[in-house]
Order: sequence, then C-alpha cells, then structure tokens
Amino acid sequence: MDKIKVGIINVTGYAGVELARLLSQHPQVELASVTGRSAAGQSLSEVFPHLAGIDLTIKAKLGDVELAFSAMPHKESAEEIIPLLEKGIKVVDISADFRLKDASEYQQWYGLNHPAPQLLAQAVYGLPELHRAQIAPAQLVANPGCYPTGAILALAPAVKAKLIGPDIIVDSKSGVSGAGRTLSLATHYSEANEDTTAYALEGHRHLPEITQELKLLNPGQSPSVTFVPHLIPMTRGILTTAYANLTSGKLKAEELRKLYLDFNKDEPFVRVADSPPHTKQTWGSNLCLVYPTVDQRTGRLVVISVIDNLVKGAAGQAIQNMNLMLGLPETMGLEALPVYP
Amino acid sequence: MDKIKVGIINVTGYAGVELARLLSQHPQVELASVTGRSAAGQSLSEVFPHLAGIDLTIKAKLGDVELAFSAMPHKESAEEIIPLLEKGIKVVDISADFRLKDASEYQQWYGLNHPAPQLLAQAVYGLPELHRAQIAPAQLVANPGCYPTGAILALAPAVKAKLIGPDIIVDSKSGVSGAGRTLSLATHYSEANEDTTAYALEGHRHLPEITQELKLLNPGQSPSVTFVPHLIPMTRGILTTAYANLTSGKLKAEELRKLYLDFNKDEPFVRVADSPPHTKQTWGSNLCLVYPTVDQRTGRLVVISVIDNLVKGAAGQAIQNMNLMLGLPETMGLEALPVYP
Amino acid sequence: MDKIKVGIINVTGYAGVELARLLSQHPQVELASVTGRSAAGQSLSEVFPHLAGIDLTIKAKLGDVELAFSAMPHKESAEEIIPLLEKGIKVVDISADFRLKDASEYQQWYGLNHPAPQLLAQAVYGLPELHRAQIAPAQLVANPGCYPTGAILALAPAVKAKLIGPDIIVDSKSGVSGAGRTLSLATHYSEANEDTTAYALEGHRHLPEITQELKLLNPGQSPSVTFVPHLIPMTRGILTTAYANLTSGKLKAEELRKLYLDFNKDEPFVRVADSPPHTKQTWGSNLCLVYPTVDQRTGRLVVISVIDNLVKGAAGQAIQNMNLMLGLPETMGLEALPVYP
Amino acid sequence: MDKIKVGIINVTGYAGVELARLLSQHPQVELASVTGRSAAGQSLSEVFPHLAGIDLTIKAKLGDVELAFSAMPHKESAEEIIPLLEKGIKVVDISADFRLKDASEYQQWYGLNHPAPQLLAQAVYGLPELHRAQIAPAQLVANPGCYPTGAILALAPAVKAKLIGPDIIVDSKSGVSGAGRTLSLATHYSEANEDTTAYALEGHRHLPEITQELKLLNPGQSPSVTFVPHLIPMTRGILTTAYANLTSGKLKAEELRKLYLDFNKDEPFVRVADSPPHTKQTWGSNLCLVYPTVDQRTGRLVVISVIDNLVKGAAGQAIQNMNLMLGLPETMGLEALPVYP
Repeated sequence: MDKIKVGIINVTGYAGVELARLLSQHPQVELASVTGRSAAGQSLSEVFPHLAGIDLTIKAKLGDVELAFSAMPHKESAEEIIPLLEKGIKVVDISADFRLKDASEYQQWYGLNHPAPQLLAQAVYGLPELHRAQIAPAQLVANPGCYPTGAILALAPAVKAKLIGPDIIVDSKSGVSGAGRTLSLATHYSEANEDTTAYALEGHRHLPEITQELKLLNPGQSPSVTFVPHLIPMTRGILTTAYANLTSGKLKAEELRKLYLDFNKDEPFVRVADSPPHTKQTWGSNLCLVYPTVDQRTGRLVVISVIDNLVKGAAGQAIQNMNLMLGLPETMGLEALPVYP
Repeated sequence: MDKIKVGIINVTGYAGVELARLLSQHPQVELASVTGRSAAGQSLSEVFPHLAGIDLTIKAKLGDVELAFSAMPHKESAEEIIPLLEKGIKVVDISADFRLKDASEYQQWYGLNHPAPQLLAQAVYGLPELHRAQIAPAQLVANPGCYPTGAILALAPAVKAKLIGPDIIVDSKSGVSGAGRTLSLATHYSEANEDTTAYALEGHRHLPEITQELKLLNPGQSPSVTFVPHLIPMTRGILTTAYANLTSGKLKAEELRKLYLDFNKDEPFVRVADSPPHTKQTWGSNLCLVYPTVDQRTGRLVVISVIDNLVKGAAGQAIQNMNLMLGLPETMGLEALPVYP
Repeated sequence: MDKIKVGIINVTGYAGVELARLLSQHPQVELASVTGRSAAGQSLSEVFPHLAGIDLTIKAKLGDVELAFSAMPHKESAEEIIPLLEKGIKVVDISADFRLKDASEYQQWYGLNHPAPQLLAQAVYGLPELHRAQIAPAQLVANPGCYPTGAILALAPAVKAKLIGPDIIVDSKSGVSGAGRTLSLATHYSEANEDTTAYALEGHRHLPEITQELKLLNPGQSPSVTFVPHLIPMTRGILTTAYANLTSGKLKAEELRKLYLDFNKDEPFVRVADSPPHTKQTWGSNLCLVYPTVDQRTGRLVVISVIDNLVKGAAGQAIQNMNLMLGLPETMGLEALPVYP
Repeated sequence: MDKIKVGIINVTGYAGVELARLLSQHPQVELASVTGRSAAGQSLSEVFPHLAGIDLTIKAKLGDVELAFSAMPHKESAEEIIPLLEKGIKVVDISADFRLKDASEYQQWYGLNHPAPQLLAQAVYGLPELHRAQIAPAQLVANPGCYPTGAILALAPAVKAKLIGPDIIVDSKSGVSGAGRTLSLATHYSEANEDTTAYALEGHRHLPEITQELKLLNPGQSPSVTFVPHLIPMTRGILTTAYANLTSGKLKAEELRKLYLDFNKDEPFVRVADSPPHTKQTWGSNLCLVYPTVDQRTGRLVVISVIDNLVKGAAGQAIQNMNLMLGLPETMGLEALPVYP
C-alpha cells in the first residue's frame, strides 16, 4: 500500500521539527513536503542535523499532500489553512486559531478579529480523550495548547462526575521549549538556567481553552479557573497541579482513583499513576500520566498530570489526531517509550 | 572590640556549610567552633574546599561559644541543645524541634514524643518579620523551615488585613539543595535533572508551621491550607505561589500592592517586586521578593514569593536571628547582593 | 516467524534499563527475561514507570533465552557469563571483563586476576566499525566502554591511514549518567549541577581499551595516549576532543574530511558532520557524529566526536552487536532519530 | 575618607552588571556613574532587579570619575576610552582592544586596523600574577580574556621554569554566560541545555593572548598552541585542561606541585589545589584553582585550572587591577567566598 502523503507548514519551530521527527517513524504516512519562510531552499537536515535521515528540502509553498499540519503562528495559520481546506486537504492546526468556539473570546484574548469565523463551526477541538468521535470525520482539527492538554486531562474525570465545585486552581510548571525557538531574554540560557518564575499573571491565552472544555464536561456549572504558568529550567515537560474543593468532602482517595481509572480505561496514552508522576516519565513520548488524590485535611481534590509539552502537548497529539482523521490506528507511530533517564 | 564567638553544630550539611560561609564574612562575629560526627578530625577546608579561607578543624564536641547554631536533624537537635541552654548559651535551632508551639502537633507530624516540651514556651519562632520583638531577648530561637518562610511572607499582609477567606492553596517549587546533602535516588543527578515532580502529597511537615503562623495573624479564622511542594531541577531557590479567595472581590491590584508595601516598609530583607520575581533575583542573598496580585476574573488573590532556600530559607535567616539576639544591626553580614546571572 | 528470545542480566542500572527500552521496540527480538538482585520479585514497570508498556517481572535468575546481555559489574559479569556460554547461549557483555586481550593488562587496571582468561581468545571487541566480520560469528562479544567508543571512532581513520604520530591527547566530556545509577556525592544533584570537573587523572580504566584498538589499527606504532575524562552537568552525551600531530603538516581539511568519509562510507551509525557536532544531535540515538579538522597554525589534527553514552556508548551498541550475532540487519530496532531539542 | 568615584561604560552586559554587583561591596570605592545606550534613562535596578540596593540611573554619557571600566565591544571601547585618557582618567578596558601588543595581530584576529595603535605601548596586560608591578602605575590596563586567564595561570609556572616543550594543547570548557547577554541560537536555553559542543575550531580570538603571554614567560621558545573552547550547560565557570610534553620526562608530581606552590606563594587569588578542582569551588569568587600533575605513562604535563568566568575571568580581575592602580589593597572588595553548592 502506498503511504499517505502529509506535509508540515512552518517546520522550523520546535513543534514543527518534532512533527518531522515523529512522522519519519510512522509506518503508513510519508512526510512529503515541509515549508518555512526564512529557511526556504535549505535542506531539512542542514537546518536540523538530527534529522539527517530525512531527505527533504524546505520550500516556500506546500506540495501535494492529503493532510497538512500547520505550525504557523495564530492568524497566519488560518490564512494558510483556508485555501488548503478549499482544495479538500485535511488540516491539523497546531496554532490557536480554531480552538475557541466563540469568536468573541478569540477577539478578547488574541486582540484581533477572528480571521475565519465561518470555519469555527466545523473545527473540532483535537483532544481525542474528549472528542474522538468528532475528530475522526473532521476536515479541520484544532490541536490543543500544551497547558490545556495537561490541565483538562487532570480535571476531566472529576468535572464530568460533578465531584468538584467551580473554584479551580491550575498551577503549571513548564520546561523552556514551550516558549518556542524564537529568541528572547526570558529563554536566554544564562537567564533561564537555575531560575524559576511565574508569568502571564494577568491572564494566559490558554485559560479560555481550559474553561471552554471544563464547561462542556459539566454544562450545569461555570468553572472559575485561576491558571498560573511557571517557567522551569528544563527543556521538555509540563507538570500541572490542579486544586478544587470536593462537593462531598468525604471522598476517599481509592474511590477517586477508581473513577479516574474508569474514565481512562480505554485511553492508550493516559495512564493513572500509582505514585506522584515525574515529567521525565513522559520524556519524548505521547503519554500523559495523571495522579488524583484527596487532601484529607481540607476535603480538597489535588490532581497532578505530566506530559512532554512537545509530544502530547503538541506534535504527538497532532499525529494522534491525524491517525484518527485518516482512519489509522490511533497509536500508530507513537509507540516509542519515554527516554529515561 | 573582640568579636563574639559562635559555633555550628553539624556543619557538614548544606545549611551548616552555608552558615560557615556567611559567618566568615560577618564583621562582629567569629566562627570559633564547628562540629560534625562523620567528619570529626578533618579540617573544614578539606571537606569543603570553597571554605579554604577558614582555618578550623571539625570537632566532635562544640567549644566555648556565646551562641550556637544547631543544624542537627530533629530530636537529636533538641538533645544537643538542652545542655547548651543550661550553660546559658544562646541557640538558634535550624531543626524543626521548637517550631511548633503544640507538642501534640509535633507528635503527630514527626511521629515521636517531643524531646523537650518544657522548652516550647520559651522558644520563639524565628521569622523576624513577625516576631522581631520576641526574638531579640530570646535564648532559644526556632529557625523557620524554608517553605514556611516563603509561604508566610507571601500571605502575612493579606491574612493580617483579613482580606482573604480560610481556603488557601500554597504551591511551592524548590531547588534540589532543599533536600540536603544526604544521598538519595530522588536527588541523584540523572534522576532530578530535566525533571519536575510533586511530593509529600499526603502532607508535608512544613504545613503545620504555615498554619500556626497564619492563624496567629488572624486568630478569628482557622486557615484551611493545602500545601504541595515540588522538586525543580535547579540547586537553589524556592518560588511559592499562594492562592486564596478575597473576602471582597473588588480589591484592586494597586490597593493590594500598597497594603504589602505598608506591611513591609521597614523590612530590610522583604521587597515588594514590581514584576513577577525570579528565584535567581535572590540567589545567594537573604532577600525575599513578594509579588501580590489579583486575578480579576475570579476575585482571587495570587501572591508569588521567592527566596534562596539556603539563605533566607535557612542560614541567612539564622544569622538575622543571631544579630537580633546579640543586639547587632539586623542586616550585619547579610548585605551581599544576589549573584546574577 | 517467532521472535528470538533475549534476556538482560542486571536490568536495574542505566545500561540495563536502556537496553529494555530499546529492545521493546525491536521487531524481531523479544525481551523474555530480566534479572536484578535487589529488585527481584518486583515488576519492571514498578521500578521503572517509563517502561509501563513492558510486562515482565524482575527475577533472580535468567530464564530461557538465545542471547543474553550482561550489565553486571566486572568480575561478577564473567562469573555469570561462564555457565551461559557452556549452555551455548550467546552473550554481549557490557562489563569490562572481556575487552582487554591481555589478562595482565586487566590485572593491572582492575586490580584482580582475570576471572576467565581462557575465554579471552574467543571474545571479540564489539566495535562493529572495526570488527564487524568477527562479531557476526562470535559467541561472546565484549561491548566497548562509552569513552573508547567515542575516542576510537574519532581517531580510527587517521591512525589507520598513518596520518598522525604516536602522541595523542583524548579530552572527553561526559554527562553524569555515565557514572551510573549508584548513589555518590559526585553525582548528587546539588554537587554536579552547575559544575565541571576532571577526574581519574592518575589513569582511567578506559585508557587501555583505547590504546589496544589504536595499536591494532597501526601496528607499526605504539600510541602514547593521555586520556582525561570530565564530568559535565547534563544527563546524556559524551563529546570527545582528540589531538595529535600530523606526520605531514600539509594536510588540508578537505583531504582529511574525504579520508573520514571514505572510512565511514558504509557505516550506518557514524556520520561525518559538516560542522562541529553537538551531543544533543545524538540524544537517544545510536549515532556517532565525527568532525575531523586541521589546526593549520600548528599542523595538528583535531577531531571531535559525539555520542549518547547510554546508546552508542552502551545499550544501542550492544543491540547493534546482537543484530550482527543473530544475523539480523545491523540497524534493526535502532532507527529512532535523536530527540531534539 | 571620601570614597573614590568610579564608573562603568556599558553596564548592561554580564561583565558590566557583575562589576556593579562587586563594586557595590567595595569599601573604598563608589560606583558613581554607569552608561548603556539601549537602557539609558532607566534606573539600574529596573533593568537588573538583583541590584535594587544600588540607586543609579543608566546614562548615555559617563559622569565624573577617577577610574572607568569599559565593557564596550572591541573598537568601540577604544573610541570611548581615548577621550577619557586625555582627561587623565584611569581606565580598565574589559574589551580586547589593548590586550595584544602587536597591532598586526589585532588586525589579523579582529579584521580591522587597530583603532588606537599609539596607546599600545602604554597599555598593560592586566593579569596581576604576571604584571603586577606594571599595572600599579599604569593609566590604561587591558583586562585579559576569560579563557586566557585560566590558561595562562595553568601554564605559567611550567613555562617560566622551562619544563615543557613548545607543543601545547589548551582544551577549555566554559559556561554559557561567557557568550554574553546578547541573544543567539547557540545560547537559547533549549539549544544549550543538555548539550556540549566545541566551537571556533578555525581559531578563537583568545589564542593570540595566550601565545603572547606564554612567549613572554620563556622568550627562548615559540609556543605552538592549539586552543579549543567548548560550551557547557552551566551558567558560570571555565575549566581548562592544558597538556604539554615535559622536557624531562622524569619529573615527579610532587616536584611539579612544589614548583606551582612556589610560583603562587604570594598570590591572594591563585590556589594550588590538593585534588582536581571543580568550577563550583570558585562560583561567584575571584579565585583561580590550579591543579598540576604528570601523566607518568607518557611523561606529559597535565594542568587543570578553574575560574568563575565573570569574576576572575572578567569583573573581579578588573577590580583587582583597579585596586592596584588606585593603591588600594589588591584583595579589597573581593574577599567573598565562593557560593556552594
């Protein structure tokens, strides 16, 4: 059988280049075309020596493909995607353009009118654990943000079971690659090394995604979420600690654990951990480890989740979505175990 | 004027060795004696080459001093301290033995009967920002834990002003030196590097300290604190993010900031930061930077604090206490600026 | 076709656990048995959560396998291997026991009589780039040390072509995982982080391996090698910088590069780099990147090589040897690209 | 006594800001003026919160001072310095402009005609261990590069005693702060973390400094130096490993050590270490630790040196030079011990 041709728009960021790495190991899909403005004309392996096994030239324009990943910045991503959709090409959009269902929310958080509001109805939020059935037939899938992936998977079982009240704290710790490959003082080695800081205290753009999805899980309750991201001196990984008051303070940790196990019983990439998980236990893999517990002194839910922000938080999840959209086994090409230590 | 002689019991841990470094720069105090069981008989600079400037031999027994720092583990620390107090020597205890006022709390958290309950009444909790007046005349000061130092300084102004309700989340991120110099798999380089994890989810021993001090600040309210510490791949630093609901949701960030500035207006080591602080901005110094803000969407208080866990979180604060107890200027020997980058 | 059963003796060190990870992805081989004394009776995924996909219990004794990897310490490894060989089982020994052809060299460097000198004649030094033809039919292969792998691949083309004199400097920089999973102060996080040091200046046990193999490449010359290893604050990776005087000072960098390309033209895992390589460009993969150049001012050869010490420097190379010994394609199961960034 | 006023030209790089930190602790000197083009008009503590104790505004032009440090890039530094010298102001130049005595060497390495060749005769190379007597009366001192400081202090005793031949290898490992505060992909956190690389293999600008000073120590021999710098994932520190053949292969390590102890017997900042030194043992201090040894198998000298590249490798050494030029005790303001761990 011929492999299915796919392409990457803007391969030169960390999400794009991680897509290339993972796709090169996919047995049914061929990475046939990659684009990148500044690097156009160079070979992929010249810019990224670790991809020396892939023989591709970075082009200014995408070639013939059946499915495209867009790793463009928001707004530009929508603009690139529109003509592709018109040609019938399937798209997984890694940018934020089609994640929020409400164009006014987009306007509020991104400071511009939505570039393609007419497409919002058909776009599916690409968190397979919540929207698998809709992702499969979709032409346009909006790949979730890295923080929302960890936060929603941490909270979904509890919210769906109406175990917690609306007051939710999401405290996330992210490795520096989440800030991308674009240079900045905050990600300059000597500044970020041996340092931890909180940022976006006035409100991070991933907050409305988290709220939107939690609301869908329990439409009867409006979640009031405070989300604070932190920058941690490591390259990969997000650990999220989520806190909420239990509506019934008497829940035992074992009952909670059983609920999480049931919720995730068919999930190939979500594992309910036996002990507090480490980001390193997902390094390079598409896993999300979730550890729910109860603070018995206060009757409060505490859930820890860990992911590799570039895999389950970006490129791996995009391929998981691609597999669903192409009718392939959901885990295909994503079976690699985490690299430890 | 002759310098005042002081000593360190158990100099070989990270708190002890940091005390030695800082004391060597103190103009009015002479580090006259250091003990350490396993290293007894060796010169201090043989075990710690960075202390080559200090000419001292590690002994099994403390020599003549006016004030002693104990960096022993809990229980053993009380046992070492009792005879010193009887001789009239002043003591700053870096262990947990005299931090909790209630011996039954000690029993509950440390799993043993308190080794010297008769001393609890006279011991002063050594957070100068809250107990300066009692520290000065005390013979026995219990140096706070590293996490409580950051957490209490983050929350004290808001709790004292009765701005927040009792539900409090304290999410702390600590560098690895907080776990000490004793070997463990969790602090083995290849395990801790490029990794983040939460720990002590069943309850950390620093929780009752936090609760005790917050309760003192607003006796009319019993705080219900969830405290989750995290291990971060850096050597020094604790960043604490504290969350609580404002009793009046209408508080503006500027009003909050003014409250924090007033509370700390005479504090030499607490600085209300203009922007979210970095742990690196306290590296090697006795500073605590505090950044209070309001999550306007949810009417929630969010406060960030940062300290160097080995200085303001241990050895520096112990010297600050010593200065008060000896009638010296509080900042003496602690003026060094943070080392950046 | 049934998969070939293989086993790992002492799976609980970093080389052993990396073998388990890589073997789980091998299409023709089944990891059927793993041993480990202290962890015997526990499931593999209990001790190593990142291996949750592998369903195996750690046993005290190896089960039925066709080929065994030994990741035991030296001496004990030989003792474990002898009975396996007598049963006709093939063995890749990751310890140092069979690397040195001369039992007196072993005595000199390891401080004990060789535990099985009768096996030295049949053991093959498992660097496929030099000994591929002998590895294939061998029953016992001695997997090279991590430093020798990088050093020999850096120097082999130049030595074989008699381009350099006998005076050779090998300056290696290794990540901390090379020191293993056993706890030590040198590998305690707070000691190793933000630190670099040289060690084993009196002579490292990997030196005689390097000398032995270089001598084989140019038997007419006795190499006089100074080897200094350094510990670098990263988990994985070895960068080796090798220096030697060119016998003809007039060699151009391009000629040298051509020589290295020719030498490695059929090598699946050695790549002659276009620019100074980064250890990160091999992270998690079996690649060795080599960059030869000439210091034109001094007429000196300078070669840089980089490997992942746990893959090409240990477990990956062991699997490469296994593939050769089992008649499988040499690269099978080792195709994964490096993980970047 | 009034403090002596000094200033910093271009305070916003890492050398400049480290100067500000160290000068703020100097008892006889007042940091009276700081300049910086992009940040002009901002307060120093706004740009660098760790300097909150210093009340200074960054200006476009230097104010009245008795001595100025220039932390400008080369060429621009000379241009800034000329008018200061004409006004009788003393200058410590941290740039490379006045380090090389031979203007044609400058032309060759920096690719431009020397901006002030008339000043070369009066400029003194500011390595106090070699040129103390000339530094004291100088008006213009050229502060050495970070690599040359470590390399020359490692080799000087052996070269001066004519112990080694001309073939010298200098292999240096530097923390990332040595690359400065200017953004680049090489110093982007996710690229530099968990990575090691060699660079400047075609020749680093610090090489001619090393050669110039070694030649002065033994004018009868022309050193043939190969210098390869490496980038290591840590913020501060340079470890240099220097290799050379002993002219007499019979030298014992103890004799060598005695020679190094004699050479450095009056040096306040150079310490001959008892065991292979760690960069961490100099962290934040002006120390240089040197460890000389003999590879007995090959009759080769191996010397390790470690410094903090921003202190003894830049700002600390500049203050040491300032002390000499102002007639102050050489160690004044530089007594702080290294910060460990």
